Amino acid sequence: MIKTVWNKKLMNESYSFTEAEKRAVYKAIAQRRDMRHFNGRALNAAILQRILSAAHRAPSVGLMQPWRFIRITDYDIRRDLYAIVEKERGLTAEALGEQKAAFLKLKVEGVMQCSELLVAALPDKRDQHIFGRRTMPEMDLASLSCAIQNMWLAARVEGVGMGWVSLFDPEDIKVLLRMPKHSHPVAILCIGPVDAFYEKPMLVSEGWAQEKPLAQMLFENKWVYGHKSSDK
Amino acid sequence: MIKTVWNKKLMNESYSFTEAEKRAVYKAIAQRRDMRHFNGRALNAAILQRILSAAHRAPSVGLMQPWRFIRITDYDIRRDLYAIVEKERGLTAEALGEQKAAFLKLKVEGVMQCSELLVAALPDKRDQHIFGRRTMPEMDLASLSCAIQNMWLAARVEGVGMGWVSLFDPEDIKVLLRMPKHSHPVAILCIGPVDAFYEKPMLVSEGWAQEKPLAQMLFENKWVYGHKSSDK
Repeated sequence: MIKTVWNKKLMNESYSFTEAEKRAVYKAIAQRRDMRHFNGRALNAAILQRILSAAHRAPSVGLMQPWRFIRITDYDIRRDLYAIVEKERGLTAEALGEQKAAFLKLKVEGVMQCSELLVAALPDKRDQHIFGRRTMPEMDLASLSCAIQNMWLAARVEGVGMGWVSLFDPEDIKVLLRMPKHSHPVAILCIGPVDAFYEKPMLVSEGWAQEKPLAQMLFENKWVYGHKSSDK
Repeated sequence: MIKTVWNKKLMNESYSFTEAEKRAVYKAIAQRRDMRHFNGRALNAAILQRILSAAHRAPSVGLMQPWRFIRITDYDIRRDLYAIVEKERGLTAEALGEQKAAFLKLKVEGVMQCSELLVAALPDKRDQHIFGRRTMPEMDLASLSCAIQNMWLAARVEGVGMGWVSLFDPEDIKVLLRMPKHSHPVAILCIGPVDAFYEKPMLVSEGWAQEKPLAQMLFENKWVYGHKSSDK
C-alpha cells in the first residue's frame, strides 16, 4: 500500500538525521555531566536563552508545560539559597550515618561559583490538568525533568556546565522566593562556564558509588525477583 | 592565572562541540515528538539497544540509576496493558466533564500498533538512597524522566517514534507484571517506526491546547503574582 503523502514526508530532508548528526546527539548524551565546579566566568546571555529555549521544547503531559524558572540575580538571595543548601547538607550527612564523613568530603554544589543560578519549579494550579495525571499526578514533575534534561544537553553542546542540586527543604525556598502555596521547587540549577567537564560522573571518580550495567535494568514481560537490581 | 592541566583539556577535541554538532542537538530537541501513530514495522534490535543505552547515560540523584525497563514481547500481556489504558481513558474522559467528547476524539496511545512496548518503572528499595532525596524523595522519578528524555532524543535521531503513555492505574500494571510492592510504573513507552513525525505537538494540531511562550515561564528573584503563568 503506497501512501503518497507520508512518503513525501519521508523524502523531506528534515525528517531524517545524518550519521554525523546522530553521532553528535549520542556524544552530547554521553558527555553530559552533573557539574559542581565552575570557573565563575560570565555566561553569554544568548547562550542562557538557548538553554532555556531547549527546556521549553520539552514534552509535557497534556501539554501543560509545567516548568517555571526563577533566575537569581540578587546576591543576597543567592547567599540565602546557599545557606538553605548548607543546612540540608548537614542534615543529610547526619541521616547517612556511617557514610557521613565520606559524604561531607564531596563537593555537592556550585551555588556560589556558578555564573547563573536558576530555581526550577512546578507552578500552582496544576490540579486543573487532569489529562495523563488522574492516577499519575506526579507526571508534572516528569515533564519538568524532561525539560531539565534538555537544558543539560544544550548546556553541554554550548561548552557550559550545569548541575542539579536537590539538597534543600522545598518549604525554605518557597518562603525565600515568595512562591505560591501549591507551587513546588524541584531544582537549584547551577549553570556557567567550566574549565573542564568530568570524564566520569563525579560520584564515580570520588568513589561514592559505582555504575551498574544496563543489563541489570532490563526485564522481559514481568519483574524477576532475585534479579540483581531488586528483590522482594 | 594559567592552569596547565585544565587548558590541556580545553584543547581536547572531545571537549567542544562543532557548530554542526550543536545544530544537530538543537534539531533533535526541536523535532522530538510524543508519537501515537506507528506503522507497525519491526524495529532493528541494535536501534532499541542504542535507545536503551541513551537512557542509561542519564544523570541520577546520588547515582542511584532508578530506571528499570520491562520489555513486553508477550502478545497477551500487551493486550492486557491496552485494556488497562482503555479503562483509564474512559475514567479520565468522565473526569474531564465538558471536555469529555473532545478528549475521546484524540488518539492518546499507540500500544497495539508500536513495534516495541516497554514499561518504565522505579525499582523497590529506593528508600535506601538518601543523598539528594531526604527532603525530595521524588528525585528518583526526576532521574528516570531524564533517562526517558534521552530515549526520546535517541529515538528521534534514529528516525524512530516514541510515545509516553501515562493513562493507567499503576496498581493494575504492578499486578499484571508481578512488580514488587514498593516499585512504581511510570510510563508505558510505545516505540517503533513511523511514517512521519508530527510537525507540531499533536495536542496543538488537534486543537486540544495551545503552547504558551517561554517568556511566561520566567521570573527573576521571586515569584510574581498576577503573572500570566500563575496567580494566587
